[in-house]
Parts: sequence; C-alpha cells; structure tokens
Amino acid sequence: MEAEIKKYESGVQAMLELVGGKWRILILHQLISGRKRTSELRRAIPAITQKVLTQQLRELERNGIIHRINQIPPKVEYEISEYGLTLQEIIDRICLWGENHLDRVYGDKNKVLENHFSDYVPTSPLNG
Amino acid sequence: MEAEIKKYESGVQAMLELVGGKWRILILHQLISGRKRTSELRRAIPAITQKVLTQQLRELERNGIIHRINQIPPKVEYEISEYGLTLQEIIDRICLWGENHLDRVYGDKNKVLENHFSDYVPTSPLNG
Repeated sequence: MEAEIKKYESGVQAMLELVGGKWRILILHQLISGRKRTSELRRAIPAITQKVLTQQLRELERNGIIHRINQIPPKVEYEISEYGLTLQEIIDRICLWGENHLDRVYGDKNKVLENHFSDYVPTSPLNG
Repeated sequence: MEAEIKKYESGVQAMLELVGGKWRILILHQLISGRKRTSELRRAIPAITQKVLTQQLRELERNGIIHRINQIPPKVEYEISEYGLTLQEIIDRICLWGENHLDRVYGDKNKVLENHFSDYVPTSPLNG
C-alpha cells in the first residue's frame, strides 16, 4: 500500500495536478460567474476543442471541483462546487494580474481584451 | 498593424500565457526562495527534463519574469525579477491551497509531501 502513494514536492504541485494545465483555470473562471452549458463554455473559450473541453470537465467533476447537472427537459449544465469555490480568490487574483500585465505591455488592456471582460469586477473580496 | 494584435478573452488567459502550463509556476516557486542553478532546479523538480527546463527558463527570461545571471567564475544562476515577484502572493496561495487539498484527501499532508516543503511558510503576507 504505502509504496503506491504518490509523493508531492510541494502544495503547488498538488494544486497544479488538479487545476493546472492550459484550460482548467479558464473553465473555472467561466463557471465562477454561474452555471453554464458546454456550448456556452465553448463560446467563451473559442480555442478549446469539444473533445478537450469534455475531457477537462470530466476531470474537474471527478475531483469534486465542479458538478454536472442533468436538467429536465434534457439539458446538461456545469456548476462550480462549494470546494471549487475555494479557488475563487486565486482565480480572481490571476485575472487581475493578467489585466495589469496587459496594461503594462499594451499601455491599456482594453486594446486587446475582448468586450465584456475589460471591466472585470472581482467576485471575491480581495484584501490589499 | 491592428489586425496582428492578439486578442485576449480575459486577464486569466493573459496570465496563463505567461506562466501557465505544467512547469513555470513550479520553477517560480523555487526561485522565490532565492537564486538557483539549473542543477538545483532539476533536483527540486525531478520530473522535468533538462530540455524542457531550459525552454521554460528561456521563456520566463524573455518575458522579464526571471533574470539569467552569469557569474565569474563561470556559473549560471536564475533569479526571479522584481516583476516576477508580483506573482509571489498568487504562488503562495496556490501552495497553501494545494497543501490544504492534500490534508483533505490524505488526512495529513505530511503523509505525501516530501521533506522540506511539509511546513511551508508563506513568503508573502497573506491577508485572511
């Protein structure tokens, strides 16, 4: 038994294993603002393929970060879980850092930010 | 000109473009605690190959997140830049979230955390 337990170098590694990679934070960032259907996620993240999106949603669901909700009439929606919401402040900070970076590189983030995200309002209370 | 400018869906996307992926946050987490040689980084992140580490360091340097320092006698070290340090609080929070996650999954993070990171002390002041 003991020998099979995976070891971690740091908490950073553990966190990235769950929500690292190219897409998961982007998906969670979308779900923080509310339940979404797969089609809505694809519109919000145009570069992702259907196949990869499905894989990523499945992994996030398997790890309890999001829930899959089957509606009647038949419709599937994804919702961030209570546990997933513990990532909200980190994601808000990531978003703000990225916006500041775009300000720094382009003079004004609005030159390169698509529409509705250009006045991003953090959804969690940020201290300092 | 205008047509060549890359557009971003969100600040999250901009941040992940710079320091997302499988390795960069792990590398920065190492450099936050002080300058390191490539060999020290490889010891701290055993799963990374020399080739990938070199690529990642070059990208981080190109974007002003780290500096390459050529010492005399010949020795190369990498140091996080002042700009890179603006990511410190996010990385500290990622680390703490990951440790809490390991506590949650394994009962006690120390069962799976390798040695010196098991009592991680945040290097930036975390509020709340």
